[in-house]
Amino acid sequence: MSLTFYFAPMSTASITEAVLAELGIPFDLVKLNISVGETKKPEFLKINPNGRVPVIVHEGVAIWESSAITMYLGEVFGVDKKLYPAPGPKRGEAMKWIAWSNVTLAEPASRLFASLPLEEQGDAETNSQEALAPEMKSSVIMEKAKADLVDYLRILNEGLEGRSFLIGEYSLADTHLQGIVGWIGSLGIDLKSFPNVTEWLKHCYERPAIAKLMEG
Amino acid sequence: MSLTFYFAPMSTASITEAVLAELGIPFDLVKLNISVGETKKPEFLKINPNGRVPVIVHEGVAIWESSAITMYLGEVFGVDKKLYPAPGPKRGEAMKWIAWSNVTLAEPASRLFASLPLEEQGDAETNSQEALAPEMKSSVIMEKAKADLVDYLRILNEGLEGRSFLIGEYSLADTHLQGIVGWIGSLGIDLKSFPNVTEWLKHCYERPAIAKLMEG
Repeated sequence: MSLTFYFAPMSTASITEAVLAELGIPFDLVKLNISVGETKKPEFLKINPNGRVPVIVHEGVAIWESSAITMYLGEVFGVDKKLYPAPGPKRGEAMKWIAWSNVTLAEPASRLFASLPLEEQGDAETNSQEALAPEMKSSVIMEKAKADLVDYLRILNEGLEGRSFLIGEYSLADTHLQGIVGWIGSLGIDLKSFPNVTEWLKHCYERPAIAKLMEG
Repeated sequence: MSLTFYFAPMSTASITEAVLAELGIPFDLVKLNISVGETKKPEFLKINPNGRVPVIVHEGVAIWESSAITMYLGEVFGVDKKLYPAPGPKRGEAMKWIAWSNVTLAEPASRLFASLPLEEQGDAETNSQEALAPEMKSSVIMEKAKADLVDYLRILNEGLEGRSFLIGEYSLADTHLQGIVGWIGSLGIDLKSFPNVTEWLKHCYERPAIAKLMEG
């Protein structure tokens, strides 16, 4: 078993960092600095031609896209550890939330991030140049992104109604989504309007592996 | 085994339609008409609160997001049929391309679609109201979206170098991506600049299940 994790702080790779921490499996860490262009260097582009983190290389095969990585690590390492469902409909539910968080929930979050003045983007490293795009710096785009986010957070809030975690018991779907929702909270969206989400997030942050990462 | 597929013509659900056709498994079809609001009705919102197709309901569990659905159907029904890899790194490669196509490749395609004048959007039904957003009708946004698409199609073209299909032999990763790339081709992006992509797409369209769907 060989597993390498290409990481950059304050990026989407933090999601994979949390997933690996929950799994508690050994891996080699390669830390890249986005702001000095290390994710755009030819040797890294051979591993991920998109020039983005996270990437894992497992048994010689590079896997990109945080959603694919969480599901992959889940099915390979998570089932025995009761962090990811065995094959079947319950696993489908976990996959649904993980895919939704990257395709649907994160999309207006990226739009909102791009619309913010540079000084309000905080410390987050962006994988793409979208955040700098001048055509996105518009209050109309910002307000539309916020409205879309509120719609999706409402869906997440309803999905958590009557359950502590997304598929009942804690799973890597929660590990994955807490990273994205935490980021959304840092963009000036008030999560307090979504009581199930704030309660769920609190419980995610109490997970020892995540609490340890948050201490830094 | 009970499987229901919620579908609308000329939508993202066409991807799932192709996946189910390749698998050749029985399912109940529920056809919805997006333009008269059938995906926003309360009874459908109970199944997918996002008000979008595709959705499958397998053994009573609703699964949304076309990427999650393709991976789920692949692992449940596709391994025996040699349309999806067994668990392991090769499956990870399929998952990487499927996730990439929805998160990364489709994102500028949606932006380009939204930037087009209504009369150039063609027959495609959009799941969201993004396509109508007046703040997106900008030539700057259109040109940026086209440039991003060209970057990503180049990555796909390189990924297909020296191989007939995405992971070597044909798999549901190809079924999934041909749907998205075909849509991109309909948005005025000339695929001829990407010879591996056009050759691959031709071979995908020769698959009997896909050829039959394209005949309509």
